[in-house]
Amino acid sequence: MESKVSRRLTQATAPEVCEHIYLPRLHREFGPGFRYLTDINQAHLLMLHGAGLIPTDVAGTLARALRQIEQDGPAAVPLDPEREDAYFNYEARLMAVAGADAGGRLHVARSRNDILATHDRLRARDTVLALLTTLTDTRDVVLQQAAAHADAVMPGYTHLQAAQPITYGYYLSGVAQAMGRDIARLRHALDGLDACPLGAGALAGTAFPIDRAATARWLGFSTYAPNSLDAVASRDFAWEILSAITIATVTWGRVAQDLYVWATPEFGLIDFPDSVAGTSSIMPQKKNPVVLEYLKGKGGHMIGLLTASLAALKGSHFTHSGDGNRESMRGFWEATDEALRCASLLKLVLENATPQCGNMLARARRDFSSATDLADMLVRDAGMSFREAHHVVGAVVREALDRHIPACEIDSDMVNRAAVHHIGRALALDAASVARCLDPEQGVAARLAAGGPAPDLVRDQVDAQLAALAQDRHAIDALHHTVETNRATMKHAVEQLASRHP
Amino acid sequence: MESKVSRRLTQATAPEVCEHIYLPRLHREFGPGFRYLTDINQAHLLMLHGAGLIPTDVAGTLARALRQIEQDGPAAVPLDPEREDAYFNYEARLMAVAGADAGGRLHVARSRNDILATHDRLRARDTVLALLTTLTDTRDVVLQQAAAHADAVMPGYTHLQAAQPITYGYYLSGVAQAMGRDIARLRHALDGLDACPLGAGALAGTAFPIDRAATARWLGFSTYAPNSLDAVASRDFAWEILSAITIATVTWGRVAQDLYVWATPEFGLIDFPDSVAGTSSIMPQKKNPVVLEYLKGKGGHMIGLLTASLAALKGSHFTHSGDGNRESMRGFWEATDEALRCASLLKLVLENATPQCGNMLARARRDFSSATDLADMLVRDAGMSFREAHHVVGAVVREALDRHIPACEIDSDMVNRAAVHHIGRALALDAASVARCLDPEQGVAARLAAGGPAPDLVRDQVDAQLAALAQDRHAIDALHHTVETNRATMKHAVEQLASRHP
Amino acid sequence: MESKVSRRLTQATAPEVCEHIYLPRLHREFGPGFRYLTDINQAHLLMLHGAGLIPTDVAGTLARALRQIEQDGPAAVPLDPEREDAYFNYEARLMAVAGADAGGRLHVARSRNDILATHDRLRARDTVLALLTTLTDTRDVVLQQAAAHADAVMPGYTHLQAAQPITYGYYLSGVAQAMGRDIARLRHALDGLDACPLGAGALAGTAFPIDRAATARWLGFSTYAPNSLDAVASRDFAWEILSAITIATVTWGRVAQDLYVWATPEFGLIDFPDSVAGTSSIMPQKKNPVVLEYLKGKGGHMIGLLTASLAALKGSHFTHSGDGNRESMRGFWEATDEALRCASLLKLVLENATPQCGNMLARARRDFSSATDLADMLVRDAGMSFREAHHVVGAVVREALDRHIPACEIDSDMVNRAAVHHIGRALALDAASVARCLDPEQGVAARLAAGGPAPDLVRDQVDAQLAALAQDRHAIDALHHTVETNRATMKHAVEQLASRHP
Amino acid sequence: MESKVSRRLTQATAPEVCEHIYLPRLHREFGPGFRYLTDINQAHLLMLHGAGLIPTDVAGTLARALRQIEQDGPAAVPLDPEREDAYFNYEARLMAVAGADAGGRLHVARSRNDILATHDRLRARDTVLALLTTLTDTRDVVLQQAAAHADAVMPGYTHLQAAQPITYGYYLSGVAQAMGRDIARLRHALDGLDACPLGAGALAGTAFPIDRAATARWLGFSTYAPNSLDAVASRDFAWEILSAITIATVTWGRVAQDLYVWATPEFGLIDFPDSVAGTSSIMPQKKNPVVLEYLKGKGGHMIGLLTASLAALKGSHFTHSGDGNRESMRGFWEATDEALRCASLLKLVLENATPQCGNMLARARRDFSSATDLADMLVRDAGMSFREAHHVVGAVVREALDRHIPACEIDSDMVNRAAVHHIGRALALDAASVARCLDPEQGVAARLAAGGPAPDLVRDQVDAQLAALAQDRHAIDALHHTVETNRATMKHAVEQLASRHP
Repeated sequence: MESKVSRRLTQATAPEVCEHIYLPRLHREFGPGFRYLTDINQAHLLMLHGAGLIPTDVAGTLARALRQIEQDGPAAVPLDPEREDAYFNYEARLMAVAGADAGGRLHVARSRNDILATHDRLRARDTVLALLTTLTDTRDVVLQQAAAHADAVMPGYTHLQAAQPITYGYYLSGVAQAMGRDIARLRHALDGLDACPLGAGALAGTAFPIDRAATARWLGFSTYAPNSLDAVASRDFAWEILSAITIATVTWGRVAQDLYVWATPEFGLIDFPDSVAGTSSIMPQKKNPVVLEYLKGKGGHMIGLLTASLAALKGSHFTHSGDGNRESMRGFWEATDEALRCASLLKLVLENATPQCGNMLARARRDFSSATDLADMLVRDAGMSFREAHHVVGAVVREALDRHIPACEIDSDMVNRAAVHHIGRALALDAASVARCLDPEQGVAARLAAGGPAPDLVRDQVDAQLAALAQDRHAIDALHHTVETNRATMKHAVEQLASRHP
Repeated sequence: MESKVSRRLTQATAPEVCEHIYLPRLHREFGPGFRYLTDINQAHLLMLHGAGLIPTDVAGTLARALRQIEQDGPAAVPLDPEREDAYFNYEARLMAVAGADAGGRLHVARSRNDILATHDRLRARDTVLALLTTLTDTRDVVLQQAAAHADAVMPGYTHLQAAQPITYGYYLSGVAQAMGRDIARLRHALDGLDACPLGAGALAGTAFPIDRAATARWLGFSTYAPNSLDAVASRDFAWEILSAITIATVTWGRVAQDLYVWATPEFGLIDFPDSVAGTSSIMPQKKNPVVLEYLKGKGGHMIGLLTASLAALKGSHFTHSGDGNRESMRGFWEATDEALRCASLLKLVLENATPQCGNMLARARRDFSSATDLADMLVRDAGMSFREAHHVVGAVVREALDRHIPACEIDSDMVNRAAVHHIGRALALDAASVARCLDPEQGVAARLAAGGPAPDLVRDQVDAQLAALAQDRHAIDALHHTVETNRATMKHAVEQLASRHP
Repeated sequence: MESKVSRRLTQATAPEVCEHIYLPRLHREFGPGFRYLTDINQAHLLMLHGAGLIPTDVAGTLARALRQIEQDGPAAVPLDPEREDAYFNYEARLMAVAGADAGGRLHVARSRNDILATHDRLRARDTVLALLTTLTDTRDVVLQQAAAHADAVMPGYTHLQAAQPITYGYYLSGVAQAMGRDIARLRHALDGLDACPLGAGALAGTAFPIDRAATARWLGFSTYAPNSLDAVASRDFAWEILSAITIATVTWGRVAQDLYVWATPEFGLIDFPDSVAGTSSIMPQKKNPVVLEYLKGKGGHMIGLLTASLAALKGSHFTHSGDGNRESMRGFWEATDEALRCASLLKLVLENATPQCGNMLARARRDFSSATDLADMLVRDAGMSFREAHHVVGAVVREALDRHIPACEIDSDMVNRAAVHHIGRALALDAASVARCLDPEQGVAARLAAGGPAPDLVRDQVDAQLAALAQDRHAIDALHHTVETNRATMKHAVEQLASRHP
Repeated sequence: MESKVSRRLTQATAPEVCEHIYLPRLHREFGPGFRYLTDINQAHLLMLHGAGLIPTDVAGTLARALRQIEQDGPAAVPLDPEREDAYFNYEARLMAVAGADAGGRLHVARSRNDILATHDRLRARDTVLALLTTLTDTRDVVLQQAAAHADAVMPGYTHLQAAQPITYGYYLSGVAQAMGRDIARLRHALDGLDACPLGAGALAGTAFPIDRAATARWLGFSTYAPNSLDAVASRDFAWEILSAITIATVTWGRVAQDLYVWATPEFGLIDFPDSVAGTSSIMPQKKNPVVLEYLKGKGGHMIGLLTASLAALKGSHFTHSGDGNRESMRGFWEATDEALRCASLLKLVLENATPQCGNMLARARRDFSSATDLADMLVRDAGMSFREAHHVVGAVVREALDRHIPACEIDSDMVNRAAVHHIGRALALDAASVARCLDPEQGVAARLAAGGPAPDLVRDQVDAQLAALAQDRHAIDALHHTVETNRATMKHAVEQLASRHP
């Protein structure tokens, strides 16, 4: 049997081309793409038949063949690299099942280029929907944990130095906020891919009177891509998704970096169950943060995949080409897989991270993260300018460090002395108000300005986010429903067509 | 005069730190940031005064000082690297003008962290608005050119091989479509940054009873950032913008790549005026496509800047830090500058590219880009399956190439002979219908399926895009207006405050 | 059977961790790493036995078990993700075959960390040797073609505009020169990895009196890594290799870009046989440059893999960690596979590219690439400064373009007129010398300054490169021989040990 | 005055091109390149004169003009973007000083392309030499510190978990080892650029009988580039340097990451003087690790610059072009500047980092980093297999953690009990040997296998490295000397020529 598709080419493909290009690509792509090639063929068939471009008997034969191929699954299709790619291998199978004449009649008014463009959008849509589902679950977990730990006072860090007291719930609420934007970006990207390329042909549409709106509807799109050249040339929906998940993964890696340090015995702020830790082959005491290192490193991997896609595209022509549409998309699928993994692992980690509340509070008491509150008090109650107060408290901290006194043991005498020395003015601070300032629990409770860490504010933030999350979920479910409903309708129509007597 | 800000640190900054870190950063950032630091200080002042946190006399002094500093401009501020960054240098100037006591009173209930976060959003907002303005102008030019050349038949290429005839206007309409998505992405990113961080403090808000909504309003934001840790830790609005402009620039580079090849004498499809070409130092005949090479290369530069930002961020903690917020943002400003340049250069190029219509049509006649139309005709009129037709036409092309016959001279005899030979069946094709198929002008005119290159369809596409563009422009103008109006109101309020008697 | 390795951890690994981290990693790594794990275990066994750290009977048992495992191959090892990684799965197999007691005695004085570091170097060494072998073959082909086409005059391009005449052989000789540097970089990287990490333990060496020099020798290294922390922390040999192959691949993509344009009918300088071209599904005339697009796009892929590795590493600690050593190395193996493919495909392409000599010469005659020679002649023979000559010839070209005269028809009258007009001086150029200047064959032949395109010079360049290539091949073969000889000696010693009676 | 160089182009350059492309490039490049353009012009002049291609009187005029321009410096050259680039602006200045006729005679037998290629190599050579000088100084400091702290016992970390005791000196010696490879890579890159492109012309050499070896010698090169097309097309020496410094910077960032964590009060292993720390605007207690964050983030910046260069290059043609040679090199200079800064800052940091030896040792005693030593003892003295010992010690650690017992208080009873329970066998361990195992100082001292942390071994490692460093310095100095000597000879020859009577 002749496998070379075109009569224009008169030689067999060189074995290097089969081995290095076609075969690896087929192995990567045929399996995951099979479902979408099937849907595309079915939708195209229904449209051609509806538009009168295929007679009913041929359409029935094709419908039966496509249903059989679908049922047999991808493993039943022999993959021949001489046939170059997934589409031609699928078509060869179709011709084997439906007969060469009928099988050869489906590929009218389209091309591999618009098929590939449609495949990429269908598969990307499913992938993003799955990712959104996991991501909303992860965000939900983060928000539940944030509410549960809204009162867990801990040092807040900047530059990895204790800065001001916060709560663990406040931290998590901030993380959830960022995840909300990750979700928003993915939703915007879904809007961007909602236009069906099928019927765009190689790059110039077709003269056959096809009904592109019908094809789009069967495949769950709101509309069709309005310029056929752009439809086959462009994958910017994919780069938008890829950027969104790279940004997200880098952010999640920052959270992992926090937990990585906080989980050391030296910090002792977080503990993990053994189920998320790895062992050492020789150090029996080790409990290695395998998942955190995965999340930390993954940001780098994703940056690389984003770079690979855009750099492969860069320098290509604005049309269909192998470098522009195939090589560039290669990393995209790998990236979406990894993003799904990361969202799931992040959920696992944040569900299982146990804040060590006693240690958290003890650290917040002893380090100097309440120093700003002391300075603020000098501004508020002692009439200093902020810059003066900053100087006075800086000197107090300096003395405490030199004398190895923890923050919670700074007293009003020390502050008064520093004030005299540095601004030449005695203060009448009483011991209680200094102590109150330096108590991180009271400090956090007082941070009531909008957006702050006071526990009630955090609970309000969480509630607002849960409401937004419910809206996201609703929208994702609705889109999912539309896609599935249209698909079911299409499957039913194919079944109907298949049952027509020849 | 003492320039080290904190009493906590007891030594002068090492000269290497000043020379390698602080000084280059100050030189990069102080000038462009001055306007935003001023606005931030004025908004914060108005808010503090409004909330009763600064008495009117001090507020008046500060208002006058800030107005004076604004009028004197950034060049009047001495830059001392011992003061680390732009903010501290600005504050030192404020204390010099307003006196140390008053000057020291403005930095209450805020921090460098939220100031920097606010600065980044304000500057990014202006930058994106400017970019959107240029980009809509560029798209407008592309659409005008698309309409003007909707009838200019040329070969359409895939894999840089002539594929099917299109028109130059159709090509440009496809490019404009992609630019529409570039604009949509930037507009979405603007939504993402519309929340004011000021008042988030170092990471934990403040206990002072500030009015964050007021600050947000003065600075032209719809609202304030809801979690203060996230507000200072996150710059994902910037990565979203950076991704969007990188994607855009890579796409524009693909267009430049097309023109780069089309402008060679060998292709001869496009000509440029000398004003956009460069010379050679020794080859008098050269006319170098300087602008196209700039646009081609720039995609690579932008991919690198995107990588630099994300890779600098990667591995940082989810909070404020130098690597997370400063090093990572460094490439962002460079990237927005370059995107603005590219949008402007792309406009220049597409405004000036002159299609060589005669040559375009001649090429489309002689190459084999109409072969698909011939195959389609065999399907439509001779009852072949598409696959059969493909084989027959492939053989015809093979013969024509071997005999050095251009496509436009293929006749019905050749087709009939190939049909007999390859599918064993004679056809009764008349010469006229074969000739009609192989005429690219008729071929293009017949491609009437939605999204295709037929001139009337292209004009419709252009009209639809012009309408969408008008909406984009309206939205951009409206946002611009809001920002400017709020800013003018703020300036007026500061003026009022400055005029209060001390 | 208990698969969790450590008693320190008391829970089963979470299923997400197995599914998302351990299992995919095992599937990626166990197969390719099996050979190296086996060699490492055998070398370590021989060393331990030689140093008296394992008694002969246990050593014999282990030797027999390791030989059996080696013969059974990787497929015989059941992969359990609860055992985390390749090493522990291998060890479990060893304990099953040799018994738990003997099997548990091999992992003394080492750790997974130094094993992994050694594995990475062994596998990288083999990979680079294979790559060097292919690459020297490819360069040989390029040089043979360069010699064969040293006389094939064609236009030389800068900025994709015809600049000066060269020959196709000269072009290829330049490409081969760049490939020589690719080879040199890989050879330097091989030097950099020639130090055995085994015995470095987890990061702190060991107190057992092991003989690291012996282990190194069995495994074909010249020496052992001198600092054990650095030995497990560092993979810079890999980044050096990865950089070298990325640089190489981008260069090869530039060559592919040249051929991509030259192979269009519009340029018509190169032809390819059908065996290296792809078909179109609907355009029967198409002959798509699949391999060239692969090579063009691959540079982008490689840049991404380099970025991924370095960005995964970035932010890790200087020690062993999952992000620093595992995630970062992931892309490395993929990159070496791709580099091997590209070197092979580049060879295929350059072996099969057929220069269209007639068309090449015709283009060089008609375009203006000889204009510099004309200007040079005015300098040499008419006493003009180069800048004057440049102006005069520029004006001549301008006139020729305006009058649609090809370069080869420019005559001495045109030049004389331009000289009078632009420098106010008549010249006495005779027709023959102008014609000689504008003849690209004579022009090329005259470019005799060192490094130029004159055919004899090119043949000399090729000979010099062939000599250098022979030296490279000799060195590669010698290293290959050393590695294989030491390995054979080791296999023999293991066999001897296995044959000892228990 | 006419500034457009070529008569071929008849229009003024568009203002957008001047503003967006030429002017920023001139501002970036003219200053740093001036010295090299001058040297190139002088070397070319001497060669032309030596080869009899310029008469002595003209040569004298040019020599005087070039000396004057050199003395006046770059600021004296008016920069006109209409003249496109540095070279044409320099030439315009030369024609102004030397007169148009003489000035126009220097640009014979060369082109901007080979000038630019030569400039890039000269500037890169100086840059790498400066970098090597700083880097060897930095490595020297690291080695001095390593020797000074060879006895400072501290916990060694893997996965940021205490693993086994090491010393701070051992850590630094490992870092210095990596720096040695950084130096080796840069030295190899210097070899790669040691071939002079001048005389390669635009891409095709020249027919003038020039003496390329002479030019190379004046400019301090060993030889000239052997293929002129490759000479102008390739910058892979730059990508090799860029890769080397990116790899180096990422490694230094890993060291910074260690110090970043170790300098927290929670770890308390390292202290920094205030001179390398930054302040907080509101948190008086803060001492921000500004330099460490710079070094951490810089790896990301460098990865981005490497990506930018390679991605700009990717897709260009193998010849001279703007994207291939200019846009791609843009990030290179920025990267070398940053690498120089980082090497200097790393030196500052490691010179000033003060190990907190008491705390280091206390941590090493209390954490479980000696557990492996205990397991090793069970293997050595109690006849267990390593795997058994690992299980027993794991159980001991588990119990200690549960009972909050630090490692140094584990006693022989606990170990014996665990042995009975887990391997069903009593041990007769005496208290002293268990205590010895768990003493990190004794543990480190016993790690005497080659490459280990025992203090004497570390001192030996340091000595060996100092010897290698001395060799590196010698080679760097020698190269520096050669370059400077040849340059001085050239300056002298120019002076001689300038003094010839006209």
